[in-house]
This record gives sequence, structure tokens and C-alpha cells, in this order.
Amino acid sequence: MTTHPVLIAGRWREAAASGRFSPDNPATRSRIDQHYPISDWSDCDEALDAAVIAARQLRQLPAEQRARFLERFADKIDAAKVELAELANRETALPKTPRLAEVELPRTTGQLRQAAAAARTGSWAQPTIDTALNIRSQLAPVGPVVVFGPNNFPLAFNGIAGGDFAAAIAAGNPVIAKGHPAHPGTCQRLAELALAAQIETGLPAATVQLIYATARENGLRLVSDIRVGASAFTGSRSAGLALKQAADEAGKPIYLELSSVNPVVILPGALAERGKEIAREFADSCLMGTGQFCTNPGLVILPAGEEAEWFIARVAELFSRAPAGTLLGAGVESGLAAAIATLCGAGAKRVTGTGMADDSRYSLPNALLRTSGEQFLQHSRRLQTEAFGNAALVVVSADSEQTRAIIECLEGNLTGTIYSHSRRDDEAEYSLLEPILRDRVGRLLNDKMPTGVAVSPAMNHGGPYPASGHAGFTAVGIPASLRRFAKLECYDNVREQRLPPLLRNQNPDDGWRLIDGSWSQRSIL
Amino acid sequence: MTTHPVLIAGRWREAAASGRFSPDNPATRSRIDQHYPISDWSDCDEALDAAVIAARQLRQLPAEQRARFLERFADKIDAAKVELAELANRETALPKTPRLAEVELPRTTGQLRQAAAAARTGSWAQPTIDTALNIRSQLAPVGPVVVFGPNNFPLAFNGIAGGDFAAAIAAGNPVIAKGHPAHPGTCQRLAELALAAQIETGLPAATVQLIYATARENGLRLVSDIRVGASAFTGSRSAGLALKQAADEAGKPIYLELSSVNPVVILPGALAERGKEIAREFADSCLMGTGQFCTNPGLVILPAGEEAEWFIARVAELFSRAPAGTLLGAGVESGLAAAIATLCGAGAKRVTGTGMADDSRYSLPNALLRTSGEQFLQHSRRLQTEAFGNAALVVVSADSEQTRAIIECLEGNLTGTIYSHSRRDDEAEYSLLEPILRDRVGRLLNDKMPTGVAVSPAMNHGGPYPASGHAGFTAVGIPASLRRFAKLECYDNVREQRLPPLLRNQNPDDGWRLIDGSWSQRSIL
Repeated sequence: MTTHPVLIAGRWREAAASGRFSPDNPATRSRIDQHYPISDWSDCDEALDAAVIAARQLRQLPAEQRARFLERFADKIDAAKVELAELANRETALPKTPRLAEVELPRTTGQLRQAAAAARTGSWAQPTIDTALNIRSQLAPVGPVVVFGPNNFPLAFNGIAGGDFAAAIAAGNPVIAKGHPAHPGTCQRLAELALAAQIETGLPAATVQLIYATARENGLRLVSDIRVGASAFTGSRSAGLALKQAADEAGKPIYLELSSVNPVVILPGALAERGKEIAREFADSCLMGTGQFCTNPGLVILPAGEEAEWFIARVAELFSRAPAGTLLGAGVESGLAAAIATLCGAGAKRVTGTGMADDSRYSLPNALLRTSGEQFLQHSRRLQTEAFGNAALVVVSADSEQTRAIIECLEGNLTGTIYSHSRRDDEAEYSLLEPILRDRVGRLLNDKMPTGVAVSPAMNHGGPYPASGHAGFTAVGIPASLRRFAKLECYDNVREQRLPPLLRNQNPDDGWRLIDGSWSQRSIL
Repeated sequence: MTTHPVLIAGRWREAAASGRFSPDNPATRSRIDQHYPISDWSDCDEALDAAVIAARQLRQLPAEQRARFLERFADKIDAAKVELAELANRETALPKTPRLAEVELPRTTGQLRQAAAAARTGSWAQPTIDTALNIRSQLAPVGPVVVFGPNNFPLAFNGIAGGDFAAAIAAGNPVIAKGHPAHPGTCQRLAELALAAQIETGLPAATVQLIYATARENGLRLVSDIRVGASAFTGSRSAGLALKQAADEAGKPIYLELSSVNPVVILPGALAERGKEIAREFADSCLMGTGQFCTNPGLVILPAGEEAEWFIARVAELFSRAPAGTLLGAGVESGLAAAIATLCGAGAKRVTGTGMADDSRYSLPNALLRTSGEQFLQHSRRLQTEAFGNAALVVVSADSEQTRAIIECLEGNLTGTIYSHSRRDDEAEYSLLEPILRDRVGRLLNDKMPTGVAVSPAMNHGGPYPASGHAGFTAVGIPASLRRFAKLECYDNVREQRLPPLLRNQNPDDGWRLIDGSWSQRSIL
């Protein structure tokens, strides 16, 4: 069987490859009989050269053209729904319905369409005009963007179709997608659709490019190459931090979305008032998608006592009763097992999950672990190990002061949640803990599990290091996510006809601009 | 004579010092008989501990209080104008008037007052509300900010009073200022005024702190300390990049404003039309403040021919006639001499500046250098060496294609300028060169020297690496400069009374908020 081609400079061609790989079907633990190349540096090099040309060409084209591309691409994904769900299901074992076809795919196309709208008005670029001094500035495309998609969202975070892709294109940049080796077939099909949309809307040849895999050193070389504008990575902490180091040394921006245990603090009043309800919410949220979400609640902190015991017993029952889902791949399975071993090595006790695994697929029993607040404080670093998958750790805190100390030990996380009594019973405790938790998380929730990440302008899917590489940016939410792939460009005394459209006196598309300190949609007369 | 104290945790106290230093009077090459400490790590450590407490306290106080502090501080600086100008003059040799008293000091107080206004309305934080999903986010204080001020603006960029200071405080953070060792007395006096304003407005004890100097390794340790929110540095490339590496490795944001040669491209039509006028503008701009500006025009590119020769002769005449100014210190003098030697070593020829230096003060003759485009292309890296001070290099380009190649070799710069014919004679050339230059500079100018950096909301004082560390941010211009010292904080389903003021339904101060995709000053009903 032949090796699938890569998409470089507008055409599918044989890769310059040092090797090849085949993805697994996680539901059967068997190799899928398809071969994808591990590209040499020469593929990356050629993609970069082509992307530089595309970046220049894109800057000359109206934003409307990028918007039409994003919409056309979304339409094609919608039309290929059944096929894409089947492909992605085979490579990831995520359910075709509702997950892939009815949740993730509409999210993907919704993001592309929102990004199109943002590109069209230009509000995302925050055009800023000082009429008295005739100084004008806006965010402008940063240059070729390399996107490394994760394993857990083969559509909505795919490097060639997901949130980072949509944001980078909408901001005016070509994308070099590094497909995830767990679902190369899905990447390839999405890239075919993207290429078709690119051709139909007349975008430059190298606007979208796809490489499946590279050697580690070539990934590092890619994000630090002089031709790159910026990179985006969603995945494991170790891989992400290695890329960050390479990019930092070269002075290249890289946006990371890394591991997070997403602490959930249950205050005494809430536990007493509705512990049963919260136990169900937690179990559902934690096992959804076999726990393979960036915002999976992996760490629950609650006050010791009968109610805590009851809560743990209730969750244990739900965990034991629920079927263990299929994990995304061999790496996820071994990583989860290793993380659980680390947690147990640091003193966590298994409450559930000691049973036999199902050897016919990648799967581990739903694992609930518990530890005391005292133990957590003694081994706080190891007990914050992310167990990516269907596992969670409950920390039983002795008292309010210990809860505070536990939260003070937390690393940067994407989210942090506080459940409190529906009336004012927990208010004093909330006021005490909130500032400490607030400082450590990107998104703070009340009375709601963090798993859902709405594509809202107000969303923050990011957080303090090491949850992300820069706490000022979000990977989800339009228009904010576009601003990662931009640089600030100022025009001082530049003649009107030479200005980019958004900075001319005439407002081209009713977008918002900051004119002399006030936001408006008006033109300057 | 005793060693001056440091300002830590709200009081002036003796430093834990490993040594001490005295600044120079650059106008006399003599040591000023004042001693300032080189702080040990324990001073930094104590300042960090105190700053963490101050940061928490500041978050609980209304923005109004920070605004009043900034204004009170500005008033005190205004009242101390004569004294500050004298102090700064003695340490820097910059003229008391107009430079220090009438230009830089009003700029400093103006920045503080603009920052106060920004803090008061909160528009800088870009509060964003999704009413349908009840998700709300804003930029929030990042934590203690370490500010390293440069040598060349003892007031307006001073770590304890300048633009970074004002931005960091306005955004809600305490500041640990690392004074510049060239003007410690000015730093100390400003810190006294800041402390008085801090006390009068009831801000936390460690809101403003001052250390004069540390060993290099303690500077690196400071920017990478877990307690730090972010750092800002303005100064030399080598020092800045060492700090960047340390901060990057720790996952701490650092904003750098580094060297820049600020290329000025003179197109044929402009040279023919008004070469004489441009020659004078250039000479004035290049020698102003003895050329010690971040945005000093250090590299001029013009087309070969009689007019180029005439232009160079005219500038040479102006350079020769103008008195050589006094440089900021011994390091600037030796650095400038070394840079000129590097440029000459790479083939640049001296046109002026071969005369004797004035040994009674830090000074070098005004130095105009020239080279050919061909030579520049052969040694483009070395010929982009920043000569910080009263020196500039003129590159005589053979033709339009060579000019294009020269611009393609340019590193990231703060500014780039194109002079073109007042009508359309240079339009084709402009269209060809602009995209290449645009991509390499933070601020693009037409027909105007880049030296002035207006404090405008539309300003960009930043640029592609290595002019700055991140091309998305600016060091000058309010409110944008505040956003460097912030992290994005999202509130998902958080109860109304627990939200920060800017995210509640009632808009507290008529600031701008992005509500359901539209910017407005309204409250939510």
C-alpha cells in the first residue's frame, strides 16, 4: 500500500519522508491499514517558503475573501458530516453520534463561520485612530502560523480545521497544519475540503498546508524558523514546553494550551444542600468523552465529614456502574496508567478502578482516587499530575484553613470551580477562597462543571502558566483568539490612500474602531 | 559618607548590600560623591514578599484609589520640577531646559494622568460580557511587576515614574523598580515622591518599591521568580535578551524594548524634490538628545547619484557644524565608539566624526558614516549594529532592486520611515517597498523623522523581534500599554454580586465594554 501524500504549496504530493506510520483503531487495538509519511525537514522547508509567499499575497487580498473561504470550508464540512464522523470515529473511537456528528462537527463549522464574520468586519483587529495626531494602528497578520492540533478533538481543534486554524486564517495568515498522528485520515480529508474551498475562493496556493508528522527536532526547528510568524500547540505539557523553549529562543511567539487538573472546590453548604446532585454532575462531567477533555474536572476538594464520605461513595457507585469508555490511543492508555501510578505513589488511594481492563480496546476502568488534605500538602506537586482520561482525585480537606492552603499550592489551571450554597451560607468561605483560586485559573466557575467550553467572545480557554504559555490570551472565543496571530502595526502620518482599509477615514464594513478614545462604527468625516 | 537606603515594604531602610556604587556626572567625567547600594538577593526577596501582599490588597481596592495615587504623584513631580531637572541633569547631562523640565517632565506627568484616567474607567481591561451564556471576562492585574528603566529618559521611562510604571500601577499591580545605575539620585527622589503619594492615598505599603542595582544573576532571578507577575525592560539588547531567556524558562511574561536602527528610506522623487529639507530634518533628529533615543534614525537608505552625494555633503556639514552633545555615561561613550568601529570594520566609511573628542566630558564627535548598498548586503548583520548616540549610517543604494534587497535584510525595528515625493512620483516604488518594510517595523512613518513617540492610544512603541520581545504589545500609548501587565480572567456563571465591578450589570464608571459583540458604555438592564 502506498503512503498518503502531504499538502504543500497547493498540491498533494509524495512526502520527502524518513519513515511512515499507521494509526490505530482504539476500539479494536488494531492497526488501520493506511500509511502516512513522517516528513523530513525538506517538506517543512518547502512549506515555509510557500507560506511566506502566501502570507504576502493574503495581505493584498480583501478580508472578504478569507471570510468566504472560511464559510465555504464550513459548508463542505457540513456536507461531509457522515463521512467525517465515520473517519474520525475509526481513528479515535469517539462516538459518531452524538459526539462527532452532532456536537463536535457543528462546533467546528460554527467556529469557522464566527471567524469568517470576525474577518469580515475587522473589529478583531481593534483599529485605533488618533485623528488629532494622525496616528493609526491595528492588529495585522503575524505571518505563517504553524498549528499543532491535539488528539482529543479530531475536528474542532484539528490543526487544519479547528479553532486555532480558523483564528489564524481569519487574522490573515496562512496555516501549516501539523496533523495529529492519531487521526491522520481525518486530517487528510479535512485538508482536501480546505484545499477545495481555497481553490474555489481564489486564495493563495499555500494558504492551507498539511504535514502529518515530523521528527521531534524538526518540530522544534519549525516553530523557531525565521519564516514563521507564530505557532499554536494544544497537547501534553512535555511536548508543549519543549516547543516553547525552541520558539522563545528564536523570539517567536507560541501559544500553548497544556495540561490542567481543573480544581473543583465544594464548600460545606453546597455539599450539605445538594451533594447528591453535585456527585452526579461531577461523575457525568468527569467520564464524558472518557475524561479526555482539557477542562476535565480532575481534582475535587471538599470538607471532611460524613457528607464527604457519602459524596465519595456516591461518585464511586456512579464510576463503577458506568461503562469504561475507550481511550484515544495506546499513548493515552499508558499515560493514564502512569499518572494513576504517580498519584498512588504520592499517597492517593484507589476508591474504584482496580478492576480488570478490557483488553480488546484501549481502555482502563473508571478510576476514582482519594487523599487527605494533609497528604496533598505534603506531595502537592505529584498529586497535581494530570491523569488525562477517566480518572479523578478527591482531596478531603480537614478544615477551611487547609482548603485555603491546598488552593495556594495549585499550579496554573485552565479552570477553577467553586460550588457554594444556593443562598448565602458559604459566602464568607467563598470570599476567603475566591481570590486565591482566581489568581490560579483562567476561567472561574460557580456551581457548574468546567467541561463545556462555549465559543463565546467572553470565553477564556487559557490560564496562568503552565496551563498556557501566556495568561493574556485565549485559544477559544472569537474575536479574542484571533489576536494571538497578530502584531501591532502603527501608521504615523501615513497618507490616506496608503492606509489599510480599516484605518482609512471611511469605515469599510461597519466594524468597531477606537476613534479618539471612543469605540464607534462611524466613518471619519 | 553613608550609603543611600532602598525603599522596601513601605519604608526606606539600609540595603542588604554586596557593594555600592556612585554615579558619574557625564558633563565633567567626575564621580558624584553619593553612594548607592548594590542589593543582595535578600533585598529582592523581601521586596517580592511584600509585593505579593500588596498585589492582593490592591485587588480589593477600588480603581479610583490607584487613579488618585497616579494623579497625586504627578502633582508632586510637577511641584518638584526644578529640583528634579537639576538632579537629572547632574546625573545625565541632559539639558535642564527645555529637555528635562519642559519636555520630559510634562511627558512623565501626562503619562501618569492618562494612566489614572484609564484606571478610573476600566476601558483598558476590555470587559466582555455574553449575556445569553452569562460568561464575562476582563483583563485583570497580573501580579507584582518588575520594571527596569533605561539610561536615556531619567524621568519619562524611569522604573519608578515612567511609562511602564504608570501602566503597571494603572492595571492594578505593585511595582518593584530597578533604578538605573546612571541616575540613582533621580530614582531616589522620584521614589520619595511616589511613597508620599502612596501614603496620602492609602495604597498598600509595598505598592512602590525601589532597588538601585543588583548583581546580574539576581536580576535574572528576579524576573523568573514565582512571585513575579511580569517584567518590563528597556535597554540594551544583550541585557534584555538575557532577562528574556530567564523569564521565558520560568513561564513569566517579560516585555522588552530593545535596540533599533530605525531605517529611513528616501525615495528618488523625495530626494530630488526636497533633499535639502530632509537633510536638515535628519541631522536635527539624529543629533537631538545626542542621538540617545530608542527611535533615533540610525540608518538612511537613498538612491545613488548626484543628489545622494549632495545630501550626504549637506548632512556632513550640519553634523560638523553642530556641537557634539554630552553622552549619558562612560558605557554609552565606549559602546558608541565600539559600534562605530564595528560599522567601519564591516566597510562603512567615516564622512564626519574623525576629529578629537572633548575629554572633559563623555562625548564623541558627531559621526556620519556611509556605505554602498552592495557592501551593506554583504555585511548586513554587522552594518545593522545600533550605534546608540550621535552617529548614523547612510547606505547608498545602486537601484530600486538593491533598495528592496536591503530592506529585506533588515531585522525587526521599532520604526521605519519612507520619504516620498509630495505628489505621486514615488508611488510605484512606495507600493513595492512598503509591504517589505511594514513587516519589519512596529511604526511606519511617512515624510517625518521617527524620533518623537507621542503618548497616543494609537501609538506603537514596539516592533518585531528583536526590537521587542513580542510584536503584539506597545510600551507607549494608553490604554494599550496597560494590557501588558494583565491576564485574562473569565467568570462563567458567577453570581452577580461576586463579579468584579466592571463585569456587573451596572456599569460603574461609563467605561467601554464589549457586550454581546457591541462596544457600549451602557449598563445591562
